[in-house]
Amino acid sequence: MPRTMIGQMDHSKSPVVGAKRMNGAESLVRTMVKGGVDVCFTNPGTSEMHFVAALDRVPGMRCVLGLFEGVVTGAADGYFRMKGTPASTLLHLGPGLANGLANLHNAKKANSGIVNIVGQHAVYHIGYNAPLTSDIEGLARPMSSWVRTSPDSKSVAADGAAAIAAAKSAPPQIATLILPADTAWNEADGIAEVPAEQQRASYSPQAVEQAAKILHGDGEGTLLLMTGSALSEQGLALAERIAAKTGCTVMGPTFRPKMARGRGRFSIDRIHYVIENALPMLAKFRHIVLVESDDPVAFFAYPNKPSVLRPEGCDVHRMTSWGENSVAALEALAGAVKASAKDVKPQAVQELVKPTGALTHASIAQSIAYAIPENAILVDESLTTGRAFFPPTAAAAPHDWLQNMGGSIGFSTPLSIGAAIACPDRKVITMVGDGSAMYTIQSLWTQARENLNIVTIVFANRIYQILRGEFDNVGAGEPGQRANDMLRLDRPTLDFVALAKGMGVPGRAVTNADEFNKALAEAVAEPGPRLIEVQM
Amino acid sequence: MPRTMIGQMDHSKSPVVGAKRMNGAESLVRTMVKGGVDVCFTNPGTSEMHFVAALDRVPGMRCVLGLFEGVVTGAADGYFRMKGTPASTLLHLGPGLANGLANLHNAKKANSGIVNIVGQHAVYHIGYNAPLTSDIEGLARPMSSWVRTSPDSKSVAADGAAAIAAAKSAPPQIATLILPADTAWNEADGIAEVPAEQQRASYSPQAVEQAAKILHGDGEGTLLLMTGSALSEQGLALAERIAAKTGCTVMGPTFRPKMARGRGRFSIDRIHYVIENALPMLAKFRHIVLVESDDPVAFFAYPNKPSVLRPEGCDVHRMTSWGENSVAALEALAGAVKASAKDVKPQAVQELVKPTGALTHASIAQSIAYAIPENAILVDESLTTGRAFFPPTAAAAPHDWLQNMGGSIGFSTPLSIGAAIACPDRKVITMVGDGSAMYTIQSLWTQARENLNIVTIVFANRIYQILRGEFDNVGAGEPGQRANDMLRLDRPTLDFVALAKGMGVPGRAVTNADEFNKALAEAVAEPGPRLIEVQM
Repeated sequence: MPRTMIGQMDHSKSPVVGAKRMNGAESLVRTMVKGGVDVCFTNPGTSEMHFVAALDRVPGMRCVLGLFEGVVTGAADGYFRMKGTPASTLLHLGPGLANGLANLHNAKKANSGIVNIVGQHAVYHIGYNAPLTSDIEGLARPMSSWVRTSPDSKSVAADGAAAIAAAKSAPPQIATLILPADTAWNEADGIAEVPAEQQRASYSPQAVEQAAKILHGDGEGTLLLMTGSALSEQGLALAERIAAKTGCTVMGPTFRPKMARGRGRFSIDRIHYVIENALPMLAKFRHIVLVESDDPVAFFAYPNKPSVLRPEGCDVHRMTSWGENSVAALEALAGAVKASAKDVKPQAVQELVKPTGALTHASIAQSIAYAIPENAILVDESLTTGRAFFPPTAAAAPHDWLQNMGGSIGFSTPLSIGAAIACPDRKVITMVGDGSAMYTIQSLWTQARENLNIVTIVFANRIYQILRGEFDNVGAGEPGQRANDMLRLDRPTLDFVALAKGMGVPGRAVTNADEFNKALAEAVAEPGPRLIEVQM
Repeated sequence: MPRTMIGQMDHSKSPVVGAKRMNGAESLVRTMVKGGVDVCFTNPGTSEMHFVAALDRVPGMRCVLGLFEGVVTGAADGYFRMKGTPASTLLHLGPGLANGLANLHNAKKANSGIVNIVGQHAVYHIGYNAPLTSDIEGLARPMSSWVRTSPDSKSVAADGAAAIAAAKSAPPQIATLILPADTAWNEADGIAEVPAEQQRASYSPQAVEQAAKILHGDGEGTLLLMTGSALSEQGLALAERIAAKTGCTVMGPTFRPKMARGRGRFSIDRIHYVIENALPMLAKFRHIVLVESDDPVAFFAYPNKPSVLRPEGCDVHRMTSWGENSVAALEALAGAVKASAKDVKPQAVQELVKPTGALTHASIAQSIAYAIPENAILVDESLTTGRAFFPPTAAAAPHDWLQNMGGSIGFSTPLSIGAAIACPDRKVITMVGDGSAMYTIQSLWTQARENLNIVTIVFANRIYQILRGEFDNVGAGEPGQRANDMLRLDRPTLDFVALAKGMGVPGRAVTNADEFNKALAEAVAEPGPRLIEVQM
């Protein structure tokens, strides 16, 4: 091919170039690939068929099919958390988007960036109120920060580029682009350029200076409450020095999108989910310095219990906001308080224990800590069973720990798909309760289809145990028969090994620690997805 | 107990009576039971625990747990369609509602009445932006006709009564009542009275007179397009007489919420889903008389194909709107055109065939027609496989046939739950494609838990066949590898017998007509849920 031909097909120099005939769908797919959005989690329908057809003509877009839209949006969240750059989703009109909203809610609360492409009827068809007609923008808004309906095929590429820019902004956004079918099948002008990525916003030196002043004045009375980029290995190491030097405490909020953990890394506590435990944890602090995190509040309100968790009189100082460069800010703070690596006492080596005997919350935690392979990604939706997991896993091989930020359960099995696709060389371990696992159980099929390195551990306690606890917390007394029927999952018993088999994932059930150790070791060693049902 | 005490606890005489101390949740549950809403499909969370606790104290509310909210809302749709009176749902904040929206969309398009109770944070907690905080009213509006957030515990009963009235209005509505947790746990004033049910609206004698005039003038050129209450056994019998007398054609729209079918009942055609087939069906008509139905439009738009299905110059006359008394209108119309039962020729007796040999679309239809028991409820989400089902099942035992009105797939397995609970003495037969079955597969567990008389037939063709057809329809050409990966479900193969086992439903797979006949006969004869995977 002569060079001039190559030149003609290179649209990189101008925002929209019309050298090649293509329809709106193809202009969008090419714009996305060029803009670095080259993974698409899909559950398409008729109105998206031109987009699907364009995939055949455009190289470089990896498409991953989910059998339910909550799988698709949760996977996009996981992809962003591990890759730091957005994936796209492809969803079918209002109801397809609706099915994905719960995990978009979780993604939004995690500050993940996602580009949603939602099909719509052809513009001239919308007014006929056909069965699938609904208010798609209205559905999108509560869980998106950026919403646009593309008006015509000439605008689709530029709108796609704007959606990508929104998803990549600091802080990242859920961007939802609604694509009427005729804008996909009519002729486009070419592809569009995504504006250069914004630099990760810096930080405020004044806010760091103020934090240093607080630490100088009352180190022991100060809590450094960190999340976001501060929970990277580097951020934690800097916080460890600052704590060693000033005597302050470092904690994370109850839930964090991603956190570096394991041997050799600074192990910090998190604010406990149960309010009776959270309040005493914070009682001694006179200052809270926020590093990307928010002023801590209770997950739910309870009769006669407070919403705000910090003690009265405790002041709050924000050092960095979400999307700012917290590692640089922590480095500056360490400099200001003259903290260095020498201030940190070497960690005592904590032995990993391979438990034996009965499955208890403690022995389950030990088994998992023992089995975690180097550089694993742990996706945690274990709720009540998992409350004991933090201490023993601090001694495990270094890993990342991902949690649910929006509180909508059914996030972990989809999230693990996106994490595994973002990091194909790392093992993903999903820890999920039986109740939670059922919301988006269809995830297992995609894990099998894509042969992803995911070990799903289902904790089968046969109850919404968290609700049983909350039933107490709201002061509702002992549940009777009808209330118990809304909490217990034991009639009939869910067989997760059969469910996994139904979707092509090899599984096994374990009933004691030795079986669990063995199953974990094998699952971690083998490539592809595995499921372990832990019968408690 | 002295009579005066009983009198004090009888709140039936006044809108809100405060004789008995109770919290807001209990006042709502008592108001619902008293207002005739005594079935609640639930997937509760923390903020709904007071409501759950109230269930123990209030007799008469049947609660049915679903493991995913799409099961819950779809079941409420099915309950309304068979019972004609609303059930309630109990959903957990914005994401719980979001998970239920797709089947609320379907229910809304079916004109089903539902009372959704959606938990919310305590009013004073909302502003703290805790993880589960979202714009619940914004999420509710696109799929609800009535939305209200209860402001305090004194208002909850009256708001509940208003929601029930909205759900029972003509036409019925999706009513969504958002219940902040503190309105549930604070003290209420008592229960509230639901306003007396509106009479089913009558019909316009002028509109009937006009329809009679059209039939007198051009019977042969007239299409009576009927849905809603006109598709009852009685409505169809009247339409049959009118057609016999005037030479008009009677059809249904492509999809209908419920239709009486089978031996001895007037068998009418439906407008075909595929536009190339729909257009010639309507080409000869000069007049369309709408009986609750709408001017027919294409399900989707396609390049260079029309949205409106009637031929140019064909006029449209509305005889009844949704919620009007179409049976009375048809009776009046029959009178006006002097049609009587004597005009109807006796139907030829059509033999049912028990097929043998290979499974084809035709033999599958014959097997089902043969197996349908008297008074069965058929829930149809068979999409492409099911297109051949209509003609042979016209000769089956009398039954009701329910379809998807909103086009959001994953409606049938939940709908069957509500239908089975509404009609415990009837057998429900769900026909569903493999792709569709996966959206709300969690339904099987509720079917097992409640031991419902539901036979689920999964047509496992291993492809989103409807999309493969649409890929052609939109003129996208032959799918390549990447497009095919978005359409095919054969890698890995879904094993529905294993999935059913995982949720406590006995299942079997069949590969030929003889096995299918046998499996159907046994499943229909046995009580409780069964699943049959038809491997095509």
